[in-house]
Amino acid sequence: MKPPYPNRPRQTMPPAEDYIIGMHPVKEAILSGKTVDKVLIDRVETGLATKEITALCKEYNIPLQTVPPEKLKRITQKNHQGIIALLSPVPFYDLDNIIMLTFEKGEDPLVVVLDRITDVRNMGAIARSCECMGVHAIVIPEKNASRINSEAIKSSAGALLHIPLCREADLKQTVLKLQKYGLAVAGVTEKGADYAFKTDLNGPLAIVMGSEEDGISSDILRICDTLVQIPMKGKISSLNVSVACGVMLYEVNRQRGQ
Amino acid sequence: MKPPYPNRPRQTMPPAEDYIIGMHPVKEAILSGKTVDKVLIDRVETGLATKEITALCKEYNIPLQTVPPEKLKRITQKNHQGIIALLSPVPFYDLDNIIMLTFEKGEDPLVVVLDRITDVRNMGAIARSCECMGVHAIVIPEKNASRINSEAIKSSAGALLHIPLCREADLKQTVLKLQKYGLAVAGVTEKGADYAFKTDLNGPLAIVMGSEEDGISSDILRICDTLVQIPMKGKISSLNVSVACGVMLYEVNRQRGQ
Repeated sequence: MKPPYPNRPRQTMPPAEDYIIGMHPVKEAILSGKTVDKVLIDRVETGLATKEITALCKEYNIPLQTVPPEKLKRITQKNHQGIIALLSPVPFYDLDNIIMLTFEKGEDPLVVVLDRITDVRNMGAIARSCECMGVHAIVIPEKNASRINSEAIKSSAGALLHIPLCREADLKQTVLKLQKYGLAVAGVTEKGADYAFKTDLNGPLAIVMGSEEDGISSDILRICDTLVQIPMKGKISSLNVSVACGVMLYEVNRQRGQ
Repeated sequence: MKPPYPNRPRQTMPPAEDYIIGMHPVKEAILSGKTVDKVLIDRVETGLATKEITALCKEYNIPLQTVPPEKLKRITQKNHQGIIALLSPVPFYDLDNIIMLTFEKGEDPLVVVLDRITDVRNMGAIARSCECMGVHAIVIPEKNASRINSEAIKSSAGALLHIPLCREADLKQTVLKLQKYGLAVAGVTEKGADYAFKTDLNGPLAIVMGSEEDGISSDILRICDTLVQIPMKGKISSLNVSVACGVMLYEVNRQRGQ
């Protein structure tokens, strides 16, 4: 895997829904290191240009979506040649780099993995908690993730501009990789065997938070080192995911005496 | 995978912005015990009817607002005679009753006081955490509170239909009253003398959460029995208020071993 944009300097924020249209400009944007959130291709286009962009997206780990022509038309009326790249207002970081740098600094990495958190305001609130509570990186999947747009940045109180965000193609593989780096992976779920405060959360740690609808995916749930729950009573018996994430991070810091 | 809200009874939701117009219907609604969220009166009306409604609102602790005629026109084009009552989809409870009933059941009351939380989604998320975590009542002020509408109920995952909500005219007086009942009052603020986990949160307790903009009002801050903070690092150094509230409730339950 190629490190997406390792040493990218901080930039002034482009408008949230900023985009680039047309084959060559999109290609240039990718090659010059712009943070591309997603490339949309007209599904009726099957020419050489499309193939080239497809290969480039694969190489640079950029999500590619084939869409009906109407969708492109809704974004712009200009001549987009069937290709639009949506830009992200924040850069994506390389997870391996962050883990290694954190170990080098003598710190225990603390990573939050978001499995299909698609609500923009939850994404923002989680990023805000992570930034406040010493998280080194937030991992989101390429698909089924919230858009990182101006609303997410506003909900994060600006934290999304400070906390490293890593985008990974396959969350299960990412979890396995984190384990190889020596991180214990704790899934937060009402199926958890023990309460958070009865689980040792010291040392290198990744916390997995699942979707609002159905929690953590079963294939990720299966490989977690430990499943923890937050004690609950009442009829609703499930917290908002950003609240649950904040509680877990508080518990980690409490155990570390910070 | 399990549905997230197993025991949640499905209910039909009343329309969020339900209202009653005209002098006599509004008077009847108040006298018959309907939960009136707020009465709006045309500010150019000063007749006898207005005086009568004003007295009635005072007697029943219902917020009254004089507004320009355009505001009423935006709500309805019908002949409202300068008076519109906005109804609340949830009832308000009597705080004294709840405290006494809780003591009678042999439980330690746990109350959450919201000082100027006006964001509807934060209100919903807080109610959801409170319902999940054994809170007996949420106290909101008459003025400067979030509207309790369908968006708040949705954000609360239905919790607002289960958790008792108390509306008080004067939050400072309410805090003094809670102290007379024997509740320790803990204000959550970055000015807190100690970390939450180093503060004894056992026994009858009220937790005060302040507004997103400027925290807890100084007159309430001054009378809190204890000020606690949630440990934080990073540049943003303030959590979303619903996350902070969830963390505090988790800490209370942790200390009580639940």
